[in-house]
Amino acid sequence: MSAIDLILLYDYYGDLLTDRQKECFEMRYYQDLSLGEIGEELGISRQGVHENLSRAEALLRNMEAKTGCASRDQASRKAANTILEAATALHQNDDPVVSALAKKILSAVQGLEE
Amino acid sequence: MSAIDLILLYDYYGDLLTDRQKECFEMRYYQDLSLGEIGEELGISRQGVHENLSRAEALLRNMEAKTGCASRDQASRKAANTILEAATALHQNDDPVVSALAKKILSAVQGLEE
Repeated sequence: MSAIDLILLYDYYGDLLTDRQKECFEMRYYQDLSLGEIGEELGISRQGVHENLSRAEALLRNMEAKTGCASRDQASRKAANTILEAATALHQNDDPVVSALAKKILSAVQGLEE
Repeated sequence: MSAIDLILLYDYYGDLLTDRQKECFEMRYYQDLSLGEIGEELGISRQGVHENLSRAEALLRNMEAKTGCASRDQASRKAANTILEAATALHQNDDPVVSALAKKILSAVQGLEE
């Protein structure tokens, strides 16, 4: 799993990690620090950092495997973009009935993108 | 939290429960058995059933509090229904351009309802 995928999962399930796991994860993946640098910063061993990261990553992956929440949400965002594009075109239609229905779709689709 | 809400959360996070917690949960909320009946069925005490159910419910609630996955999905389904309704009306429009764009929206919205 790439760093980008892990960061996506962290957005969804990060609150389930311990504070220490969160610190290690953010230093590793947001600040791009090495295990040694993180250990020095937190006053723990390189091995300690490694264990915190391994547990954090395993939890994030397990959560996604068990719930599929992140991948479902990503699919939903993709669909929302397609709908947004088509509804924007329809909204410019001269027929006021078409335009009004398109506006309804545009309002609803906003809820999908949050 | 009502039984219906708990059953919704179980759909999302049930795989995170232990097998015993799952058994107790399903007997309680799907089969509507009493704690005593469940205990008899599983050969454990009424108190044991109660503890399994309490832990299961706490985990389901905690997962939702930390990830918000179920409520986001419910909002998404509601939006999808609104979009589906408007796009179905647009799809019947005589203008082939309108109809084609509506078809695109209908295809995309199907992905949201799965």
